[in-house]
Amino acid sequence: MKQEDAIGVVGLGRMGWPLCENLRDHGHRVVGYDLDAANRNRLATGGMEAVGSLDDLCARLASPRHIILMVPAGAPVDAVLAELLPLLAAGDVVIDAGNSHYGDSLRRGASLSEKGVGFLDVGMSGGMSGARHGACLTIGGERRLFEQAEHLFRDIACEKGYLYVGPSGWGHLVKTIHNGIEYGFLQAIAEGLATIQAVADEKGDAIDLVRLCEVWGHGSIITSRLLNDTVEALKLLREVEVPGKVGGGETGRWAQEIAKAHQTPVPVLTASLDQRLRSQEVPDFSGKIIAAIRNVFGGHSFGS
Amino acid sequence: MKQEDAIGVVGLGRMGWPLCENLRDHGHRVVGYDLDAANRNRLATGGMEAVGSLDDLCARLASPRHIILMVPAGAPVDAVLAELLPLLAAGDVVIDAGNSHYGDSLRRGASLSEKGVGFLDVGMSGGMSGARHGACLTIGGERRLFEQAEHLFRDIACEKGYLYVGPSGWGHLVKTIHNGIEYGFLQAIAEGLATIQAVADEKGDAIDLVRLCEVWGHGSIITSRLLNDTVEALKLLREVEVPGKVGGGETGRWAQEIAKAHQTPVPVLTASLDQRLRSQEVPDFSGKIIAAIRNVFGGHSFGS
Repeated sequence: MKQEDAIGVVGLGRMGWPLCENLRDHGHRVVGYDLDAANRNRLATGGMEAVGSLDDLCARLASPRHIILMVPAGAPVDAVLAELLPLLAAGDVVIDAGNSHYGDSLRRGASLSEKGVGFLDVGMSGGMSGARHGACLTIGGERRLFEQAEHLFRDIACEKGYLYVGPSGWGHLVKTIHNGIEYGFLQAIAEGLATIQAVADEKGDAIDLVRLCEVWGHGSIITSRLLNDTVEALKLLREVEVPGKVGGGETGRWAQEIAKAHQTPVPVLTASLDQRLRSQEVPDFSGKIIAAIRNVFGGHSFGS
Repeated sequence: MKQEDAIGVVGLGRMGWPLCENLRDHGHRVVGYDLDAANRNRLATGGMEAVGSLDDLCARLASPRHIILMVPAGAPVDAVLAELLPLLAAGDVVIDAGNSHYGDSLRRGASLSEKGVGFLDVGMSGGMSGARHGACLTIGGERRLFEQAEHLFRDIACEKGYLYVGPSGWGHLVKTIHNGIEYGFLQAIAEGLATIQAVADEKGDAIDLVRLCEVWGHGSIITSRLLNDTVEALKLLREVEVPGKVGGGETGRWAQEIAKAHQTPVPVLTASLDQRLRSQEVPDFSGKIIAAIRNVFGGHSFGS
């Protein structure tokens, strides 16, 4: 596929929109589709082509087509594929860069291959800023399909930020486990800061958690991207009333199920998931911190 | 205290030695003491002054003296202070940069102040490379003592890597909680990688965990210093037989106690501590990973 050929993107929301801008800035012609007219209009004003149907999308793409899906995991992906498949030709490649279950990706990959349509499952990490300015990609599927689309991944990813990880399903499988690790990081940070705040309250001492997390971001062992996001999250908590309920949880639950099915203890993931559930009943400061961090990196609305 | 004045360092081991080199490279004259003659000799060959007693140490330092302790937490700190205190004069300042319990630091600060000797409790993070090339420091104690010694902290820390956090005890308190967060990060990484390995083993697929952690270090949400150390740890596991038992645990247990005393749930810390204990009975791959990471950043020997 030549660099100047168009890329199709289905799903122009929270992650799909910045991904389109990223592709555009790397010289790709982007043709995008979304159910929501407002998202389509945003694409058009951003110098890209918005279409009103998948039919139209496929008509504007030269063969072999490369179509990236950025739609919510589960039924929406199957719905798009059911509508898309009759429009595709042998040799086309569908790239699911959403947070799909790897079992679904295995099934979809097999199903599409019956029609000669390629399928790559891509775990995309880095939140909205990653999608916009350079994400981290783990790619599963046939290696020859990966190699065919590698120039796209190179453009979407930050430097050294993509890897072919294995056959069908592997891209989403490692992304699911990545999210499980993320849950543990988030809960570890939140419960630590909540402990410090509780001590400060009891002693009547003032502690500046923003400055503390900033300094921990310079030379400490827990230096991390999520700790940097925590600085922004704590500033947000000073400005906005954030409920202490933490939403999400789907990929974390999948990670837990995968671990259980493979006899691997994941006590930190389990504790993090349980705490998210508990936060729905007993919202607290640590829940506020996690909700705010998730908003900072992923644009997740509070409580969802 | 003038820049050319000497700094005393007690404890020239795993963390003390690189700290001395760091101070020396910043133009400080370092006078060091250690019970172990081998450690003293290393200091002398490094262009610094090694002395054979605390008496000698104090004799070589101009008033007001600044003496940094880098000795194991607990009884060793009290032993050094008991021997040191009669040798000190009002106005001298002792800086405990080890991993002491903040309750001990509160007590020691109060005890030293009765003789007019200042005390600062400093949480130092960043492992051996941090001590050598720029650590992260959280400093507790009287603010005027902090300001008096600030030039030292600026030299020891990496850029933007030090912070006065509050009255006596606070430097070590936040370091203890930092370590608790670190425990959660470590267990989250280890159990995630163990899950991926278990899936790969079951499927008969090859997964390169080194390359996976490398790529996660470029643009993913879990980008972190510990993930970088994990890359080195996984390489180490290919070279060396590492037992799956994880040592340490003291500061984590303190963090848990502090949280409990302040009615703050710390389920991830608790799960991480429990898993460390469990690893003594049931060593596994995740234990190997944590043991290897701790060796990479902290020089902790395997199983301790």
